[in-house]
Amino acid sequence: MLADDRRYMAAAIALSERGRGLSTPNPNVGCLIVKDGRVVGRGWTQKGGRPHAEAQALEQALDRARGATAYVTLEPCFHLSPRGPRCADLMARAGVERVVIALRDPDPRTDGQGAAWLREQGIVVEMGLMAAEAARAMRGFVLRQTLGRPSVTLKLGLSIDGRIALADGRSRWITGPHARAHAHMERARHDAILVGGGTSRADAPRLDVRLPGLEDRSPRRLLLSRGDAPQGWERIGAPEEIAALERVDHLLVEGGAGASAAFLRADLVDRLLLYRAPILIGDGLAGIGDIGLSDLGQAHGRWRIMDARALGVDRLEVYERVRNA
Amino acid sequence: MLADDRRYMAAAIALSERGRGLSTPNPNVGCLIVKDGRVVGRGWTQKGGRPHAEAQALEQALDRARGATAYVTLEPCFHLSPRGPRCADLMARAGVERVVIALRDPDPRTDGQGAAWLREQGIVVEMGLMAAEAARAMRGFVLRQTLGRPSVTLKLGLSIDGRIALADGRSRWITGPHARAHAHMERARHDAILVGGGTSRADAPRLDVRLPGLEDRSPRRLLLSRGDAPQGWERIGAPEEIAALERVDHLLVEGGAGASAAFLRADLVDRLLLYRAPILIGDGLAGIGDIGLSDLGQAHGRWRIMDARALGVDRLEVYERVRNA
Repeated sequence: MLADDRRYMAAAIALSERGRGLSTPNPNVGCLIVKDGRVVGRGWTQKGGRPHAEAQALEQALDRARGATAYVTLEPCFHLSPRGPRCADLMARAGVERVVIALRDPDPRTDGQGAAWLREQGIVVEMGLMAAEAARAMRGFVLRQTLGRPSVTLKLGLSIDGRIALADGRSRWITGPHARAHAHMERARHDAILVGGGTSRADAPRLDVRLPGLEDRSPRRLLLSRGDAPQGWERIGAPEEIAALERVDHLLVEGGAGASAAFLRADLVDRLLLYRAPILIGDGLAGIGDIGLSDLGQAHGRWRIMDARALGVDRLEVYERVRNA
Repeated sequence: MLADDRRYMAAAIALSERGRGLSTPNPNVGCLIVKDGRVVGRGWTQKGGRPHAEAQALEQALDRARGATAYVTLEPCFHLSPRGPRCADLMARAGVERVVIALRDPDPRTDGQGAAWLREQGIVVEMGLMAAEAARAMRGFVLRQTLGRPSVTLKLGLSIDGRIALADGRSRWITGPHARAHAHMERARHDAILVGGGTSRADAPRLDVRLPGLEDRSPRRLLLSRGDAPQGWERIGAPEEIAALERVDHLLVEGGAGASAAFLRADLVDRLLLYRAPILIGDGLAGIGDIGLSDLGQAHGRWRIMDARALGVDRLEVYERVRNA
């Protein structure tokens, strides 16, 4: 039973990933409805936040939701909104018998009340299954609630020896087509992309998603600079200003060394997304500038590797910031 | 049958690794003797090159060698030597029925004659099984024969961003105890270790093997420098001089950035042995200096990853130089 629950919840979390980079201002939730061992409804938060995952899944399930189990990556909302119905309400009215929830909603307007109300309606509620995995999929929303800012991923395409370009700045190409396609997919799953002024001037990057069918998923473009932003770009003057960005839960920082270092110095990087080419560059441009490290001891215990695998001849390495909050 | 042959040959190759760093001036060969599905003899080239792997394995097997199959990672020697018997001769006299050989001996004094002579004695000989794997285990010997120089491994302990120290040179510690123990094990399997003058002056490294039971496996110490070598060290003035080093088939270069770059510039590095700590350093010392790269295109296609795995919180990455000779 628990093995089945984990399997269904893992599927709901995978669905939730589909809404990442699209669902703001709402969290990217995933929902699966299962009746007698058959999936009868699947949903994820849609573009702009509505419909919610649960509403979409229930609409698919129709009558088959009666007596079913719903798997939701986040506690169903219970606060009234002019934008749509309350999901806890929808669940009860559809006759769902059991609701398995990964993460309790940290939003103080729900924060356990959705689950409590469902229980009052006689529905079996279990909360906490794969909460860490669900929080990782909705990390932008979670960090908004806990630290009041978006989740930040720092992306680097670099050599074995940590260089991102030759000494004169040439960087085409370090990584190959598989890595570049993966990087474009990652862009599509972020609300905004940021580069520093130097990179903007040197590379004039388009920062769009060049993958068939995903062109319209190109995120907003931000510039970290003291100067003006060109047409189509928004400017911020310091990494801390990301907290004030509306509708940005997932931010991708794409360099260069100065912008990367500025975000790391401010401890505003939650995830490193590294594409490592099997090449040596030697003297060249470093991927990361001065991060204010005065002692090697400080450097340890901050990053944990979460994924490492081949992408063509290159390798993907994903690290997460360890925060013992 | 072939699956069994591969299994036994893989074991013989593993045995050959025991002699690496000890067997010069002879290749580190491994030998397994199998009779009726049972291993009756195991051998590897001993310290200083004698006894040979085959002699040791046959001495274990005694009468059980009669009618047995011998798995040898290198073609049995057939040239006369004042230092010991010819292995082809020993095999025939012991009554071995079948000899499976991985690598044909590139030494012109044998070069197929050992196999031919065995066949003349009515022994079944098969040559070429897992030749690439065997050559990798005996790469120092093979490179001596083909390029006239030792095999060179470049070792680096570095951060995610490719730094080997803080900007002021402090490097204690980047990697943890698992990675350091692994690096000491690697030292024991090389004939000599080399560092550059800067590293020698800054770190005064002992370069010994600090593993219980392996203290006497500490390799010779070489200094790449224009100045004098301290007591207990030998000096070379340029990377190319390694070709003239006697009794050095496997050389480990342990930095710093200047020595590493000098060997890479001369295309004298065959293997990268990287211990990557999950830390960021930002501004700091690079692991590799100027390697003379004028174009990113030149950098590609030279290195292939052979191994990547966890060593405690650190990661081991092994790359091999791709040589399309």
